[in-house]
Amino acid sequence: MSKLYAITMAGGSGTRFWPASRAMRPKQLLPLSGATKRSDTVGAPTTATPEHGSTACNDSLLAQTIARIEPLIPRAQQYIVTAARLGELTSLHAVGVPEAQILREPSARNTAPCIAWATWEILQRDLDARIVVLPSDHFITNEPEFLRVIEMALTACAKGRLMTIGIVPTRPETGYGYIEVGSALAGGACVVQRFVEKPNATIAEQYVTSGNYLWNAGMFVYEARAMQRAIRQWLPEIATGMDALMADRSKLDTIFPALQAISIDNGVMEKSENLGVIPGDFGWNDVGSWQSTWDLATRDENDNALPAHAVSFDAKRNLVHLSGNATGKTVALVGVSDLVVVDTGDALLVMPRERAQDVRLVVEALKSRGSTELM
Amino acid sequence: MSKLYAITMAGGSGTRFWPASRAMRPKQLLPLSGATKRSDTVGAPTTATPEHGSTACNDSLLAQTIARIEPLIPRAQQYIVTAARLGELTSLHAVGVPEAQILREPSARNTAPCIAWATWEILQRDLDARIVVLPSDHFITNEPEFLRVIEMALTACAKGRLMTIGIVPTRPETGYGYIEVGSALAGGACVVQRFVEKPNATIAEQYVTSGNYLWNAGMFVYEARAMQRAIRQWLPEIATGMDALMADRSKLDTIFPALQAISIDNGVMEKSENLGVIPGDFGWNDVGSWQSTWDLATRDENDNALPAHAVSFDAKRNLVHLSGNATGKTVALVGVSDLVVVDTGDALLVMPRERAQDVRLVVEALKSRGSTELM
Repeated sequence: MSKLYAITMAGGSGTRFWPASRAMRPKQLLPLSGATKRSDTVGAPTTATPEHGSTACNDSLLAQTIARIEPLIPRAQQYIVTAARLGELTSLHAVGVPEAQILREPSARNTAPCIAWATWEILQRDLDARIVVLPSDHFITNEPEFLRVIEMALTACAKGRLMTIGIVPTRPETGYGYIEVGSALAGGACVVQRFVEKPNATIAEQYVTSGNYLWNAGMFVYEARAMQRAIRQWLPEIATGMDALMADRSKLDTIFPALQAISIDNGVMEKSENLGVIPGDFGWNDVGSWQSTWDLATRDENDNALPAHAVSFDAKRNLVHLSGNATGKTVALVGVSDLVVVDTGDALLVMPRERAQDVRLVVEALKSRGSTELM
Repeated sequence: MSKLYAITMAGGSGTRFWPASRAMRPKQLLPLSGATKRSDTVGAPTTATPEHGSTACNDSLLAQTIARIEPLIPRAQQYIVTAARLGELTSLHAVGVPEAQILREPSARNTAPCIAWATWEILQRDLDARIVVLPSDHFITNEPEFLRVIEMALTACAKGRLMTIGIVPTRPETGYGYIEVGSALAGGACVVQRFVEKPNATIAEQYVTSGNYLWNAGMFVYEARAMQRAIRQWLPEIATGMDALMADRSKLDTIFPALQAISIDNGVMEKSENLGVIPGDFGWNDVGSWQSTWDLATRDENDNALPAHAVSFDAKRNLVHLSGNATGKTVALVGVSDLVVVDTGDALLVMPRERAQDVRLVVEALKSRGSTELM
């Protein structure tokens, strides 16, 4: 049996968790509330700061991702692709992953160059490698089921089939791409009929009602050689760049930034024929906003997710997140509902949960004001 | 003409401004938003901390009270009565007031012993003194009109009449006592028909409609000897205590705490016959809650009272108050209305403005939990 490898994509720099997320403290390095569920902390969500102490580094979404796949793929066979500026921080969150396997992109070129690089690297050591590609910033409740689905995909990827995991949708979400499911294959897999872009609300409703569509969660499982072949076919310039990089890694800073910035979905998956999908139903959450954080958090009898020492009266369905210098402060809520309150010591955000996506307005305003210390 | 003296009552320890107010940082030592109006700061309300630096000490409600009466009564003739524990802090806010004129009560005995003590002290140096008694924690917009009203009261207090200032009511407030106005006297003064306790809403409505009632704002103007006589008549034990104290001030800690705790209103004014009142209409505000703070604050085009560096989208009629370690932090409000947000670094309060009175619930909860560091 060929060996297994993981590629965790950890170069993201989302702003949807401002002020907790910053350029040097992106979502995948935050504990967010997922950590609470994992560790079964009684009561409130974690108030651990995303400092580089062991607790926070063990709790981050990246650290969770690495640990989650470990029963199948030991850390010695795990690769992390991140941004150069996040390299040192990332390695603190990737305890046990060999330093040489933390690949530092000189610039962000989307997922195709990212996956190509790590795939080429793995092929240098193992031509028979099978690879699981994972996003670093998602949360999964049912880890045994997740591993079972990954194992099914690892079986189904034999003979060069590029596999993906499709999440069984629980609502007509318009924020994700969908995968239309085709005929059944062996071992619980199905043919991928097509990848489709984020739909509008009406179409999303139809997708979910039909039962034929799954969410595209950006997880891929394949034989390394099959992916290399596909990239050579559909993204030949990226393949050429990777060949050159393997010949002389000192050229990283000239080769990588010149690659086409394209997603693996657009660049490879949507064009390939030999695709398969395993439907996954393992409590997946992309932790895409403070709303998701509240969804995932351990909550009190009034559905508030509050830190320790909080005091609340007539307060319902609120999320309070403390980090940085605000960690441990006393928060009092009186008569407020459905709010998100995020305090990082140097910044304080207050908004309704349903406005969670509008954090970007704040980030844009601060950027245009030149408040770089808060970015 | 006899000399004028002021007694500013500064021993209060309100909890209605928690978390900004604490036992050692009571309302009269806070800048609150009044300071903004005074200094015509452009934009947001002051974010100055109630530290003991010169700016904050100049901005506190106490410092404003002292400065406001100064055109009539120089600081050398001003007395401050405060709690012993607040003595040092108070003298930082009372620049120019002689140290010996900052009287430190060993325990709080309400306003009658407070006013008696300072009145007795003033009589030691000037038997012909006329005295203006002022609360230390109110805000006044129209200072020239305030001084004009005080001058009228100083004239009207001749021949032993105990004068008070009655605020012309602007709403049927149930939180204040009222003064029923009787027949007119010379110089714009009126006889006091009676003092009445806080009314219910129906009666308050009748009071305001009648035009015959004024708010009792706790300001008194009198000849020192007249007040001494009244206290001897109605509160003879307090008078005896004061005589003993004047004979031996080293007995303060035994004499003062043994005095009856009673207000000057209940103990003297409601029983006296020779009373007068001047109606005052000078933009008075007792700054009784965060609601009042918002009322007084300089606000932006969406009626938000925000600190500098704040970012807001679709946010209306909110008050954000920063102090302590939170001073200068960046606050972002998205889609919230009519909220009070108070951040003191060690504590954060979020509530609707209309719940401002319920801060006491939080304070009680923290007390019963033993969180004394936040009291």
